[in-house]
Amino acid sequence: MLCEIITIGDEILIGQIVDTNSAWMGEQLNLAGIKVHQITSVSDNAEHIVKALDEAKNRVDLILITGGLGPTKDDLTKHTLVNYFNTKLRFDEDVYQHVKALFARFGREVTELNKKQAEVPESCIVIHNANGTAPGMWFEKENKIFISMPGVPYEMKKMMSAEILPRLKQKFSLPAIVHRTVLTQGIGESFLSEIIADWENSLAEKNIKLAYLPSPGMVRLRLSASGNDETTLRKTINNKVSELEKIIPQHIYGYEKDKLEEIIGKLLKQKNQTLALAESCSGGLIAHMITSVPGSSAYFMGGVVSYSNQSKMNQLGVKKETLEKHGAVSEETVTEMALGVNEKFITDWAVATSGIAGPDGGTAEKPVGTVWIAVAGPNGMKTKKFQFGGDRERNIQVTAITALNMLRKALIT
Amino acid sequence: MLCEIITIGDEILIGQIVDTNSAWMGEQLNLAGIKVHQITSVSDNAEHIVKALDEAKNRVDLILITGGLGPTKDDLTKHTLVNYFNTKLRFDEDVYQHVKALFARFGREVTELNKKQAEVPESCIVIHNANGTAPGMWFEKENKIFISMPGVPYEMKKMMSAEILPRLKQKFSLPAIVHRTVLTQGIGESFLSEIIADWENSLAEKNIKLAYLPSPGMVRLRLSASGNDETTLRKTINNKVSELEKIIPQHIYGYEKDKLEEIIGKLLKQKNQTLALAESCSGGLIAHMITSVPGSSAYFMGGVVSYSNQSKMNQLGVKKETLEKHGAVSEETVTEMALGVNEKFITDWAVATSGIAGPDGGTAEKPVGTVWIAVAGPNGMKTKKFQFGGDRERNIQVTAITALNMLRKALIT
Repeated sequence: MLCEIITIGDEILIGQIVDTNSAWMGEQLNLAGIKVHQITSVSDNAEHIVKALDEAKNRVDLILITGGLGPTKDDLTKHTLVNYFNTKLRFDEDVYQHVKALFARFGREVTELNKKQAEVPESCIVIHNANGTAPGMWFEKENKIFISMPGVPYEMKKMMSAEILPRLKQKFSLPAIVHRTVLTQGIGESFLSEIIADWENSLAEKNIKLAYLPSPGMVRLRLSASGNDETTLRKTINNKVSELEKIIPQHIYGYEKDKLEEIIGKLLKQKNQTLALAESCSGGLIAHMITSVPGSSAYFMGGVVSYSNQSKMNQLGVKKETLEKHGAVSEETVTEMALGVNEKFITDWAVATSGIAGPDGGTAEKPVGTVWIAVAGPNGMKTKKFQFGGDRERNIQVTAITALNMLRKALIT
Repeated sequence: MLCEIITIGDEILIGQIVDTNSAWMGEQLNLAGIKVHQITSVSDNAEHIVKALDEAKNRVDLILITGGLGPTKDDLTKHTLVNYFNTKLRFDEDVYQHVKALFARFGREVTELNKKQAEVPESCIVIHNANGTAPGMWFEKENKIFISMPGVPYEMKKMMSAEILPRLKQKFSLPAIVHRTVLTQGIGESFLSEIIADWENSLAEKNIKLAYLPSPGMVRLRLSASGNDETTLRKTINNKVSELEKIIPQHIYGYEKDKLEEIIGKLLKQKNQTLALAESCSGGLIAHMITSVPGSSAYFMGGVVSYSNQSKMNQLGVKKETLEKHGAVSEETVTEMALGVNEKFITDWAVATSGIAGPDGGTAEKPVGTVWIAVAGPNGMKTKKFQFGGDRERNIQVTAITALNMLRKALIT
């Protein structure tokens, strides 16, 4: 089954926003066994949208449209679709009640503008938008399916996952596609590929494809196979994953959509233990990641972002002499930070970071990217020095990921 | 002059990478007065590429192609273009010397594979690739221009800036395009559009287009106009922006690519003042945003992520009675948090957040999304209660943005 994604919006064409929706949709569709043949981004212009729909219809079976469904005047997708499918608008009471309920949650009345979102084309199946007011629309014409969704990513994603993909899977018998993703941390893409070269070569005879998906601090390895029998495919892929686990056990931290902060949360809950953080160069990002997990207040007591030397001394009890003798970016300082926050927040575990994120602050001895991380726990203190790169944003990200993985390893030792 | 961008690569269609090249190119072309009419992403398939070229040729005057020019991708794009333009390959000595020089820089000999990159189509103008081995190719056919570039972003960007854009500007007299973006916070898209309806209607007579670009906690308003005289256009748009400033002064926090954390950084630096944070429901995100700005250590002293009641008392001096009587999510608690962190970190300014991010923890009186924010500064304390939505991640984001904007407002009062 072939699909085309059409994204609508001048803001995409003038480069004001990066179209991340298409990539996310492409990945989800691919996982479901639907091949994305083309992605087309067009302007906020009815004629242009119609032309793109017509062309797409000749190429593929399924056309997914995002963008141009908001309540404001630059929204024209709905009216264009009404004309394209030669239908008219009707007022949908269910959609209206949903819009009303969403507004009531904020203690507001529905405006006239938002009431219009309850107007839907007569010939479409209305798709529920759990995260927003503009419903999705499912049309069928000449054996082709056209589905229009809002462009706001968190509305579109929820709609795809909860409504669109399940309906597509039910309607069509899609080929079995099995994916497994192995998550690695602390080893770069090229080193990884050298170490696993033989294993990677052995995948071809089993018709398994391998993709390296790098992001700051980690590389995800995705294995994919397609065929008719899901059970066989799954067994073949699982065997290959088992082989890989023996080659790089120390680098694998999880599978599929696992997140380090969630893994850590589960481990802490199991052990009924608590965590505190003392962040310097990571600047609060580790706390943000930990607290992004629902229920994290059960094990995360809090932390200190000690960005100044003063705050390292006053809030964490780092000694003045330590800072003077060894500097803020040192094993000694990061150790005292971890011990300090551990004591202040009375927790089982503490993680501390101190480094030079850049672009300024580097020296010959401690260049930008130098980072010390400490993990203090029931079994004592672990410290490690890292040399990351020259990019501030990336250094902050990689520090956070690396610190979380050090904590994970300490938790399972 | 109309342009289409064609990006080639299966990795885009399966969502393995996000196509950031198109957005960057779109922005650069737009600034140069070239309108991007469409962006099309196609697979690594000769037939598909040819079809996309043919279709693009009927829509636009200029076709920019990226991807499929590397040494390993079997040079699909190059061979497809050779066939498409009915030409053949010739060996280009200049390109070969450049490839040799690049390899020499890494102390390596040119491989047979890389030598092939010096083979270029006879009928094209060869475009120098300062950052890589695969040259760009400029074809002309039936009064249309086709330019093929490598897909590696830093090679493509250099080629666009140094070679392609200057040549296009020289060859064509391009129209002026002027954009301005006004950034608003604290008002939803639909309410905003009601308030500015008259102003929005007045844009049509000046041929100005308006786009609403919402993201969590904010809405960006983009005004665009094109014509012959840039000075006149800029004046017209600036006048309209001035009018808007009078209608919603309290909601505008910046312009163009401004970020709240950068605006705050500049204000604090100007005033030579300092900041500390006491975060509960925002969980470290505000600290992360503030420290993402290079040089933030000059004004950001640090903060406390006080996720537990214990840490609110021990680290920030919130009174036990306050927590018992009013709860952690209350004006009284958030006030004491701000005062506490202000005192502990000895700063001019302090921001505190406390709320129920969800999904659990809500009550009838304080449902999920209830958030208190306090800003303490030289002119006293400001507190405000908000009712955000039901999504944890979004609540955290909107809390951070809203708190930063409260701080910005206090800084300029």
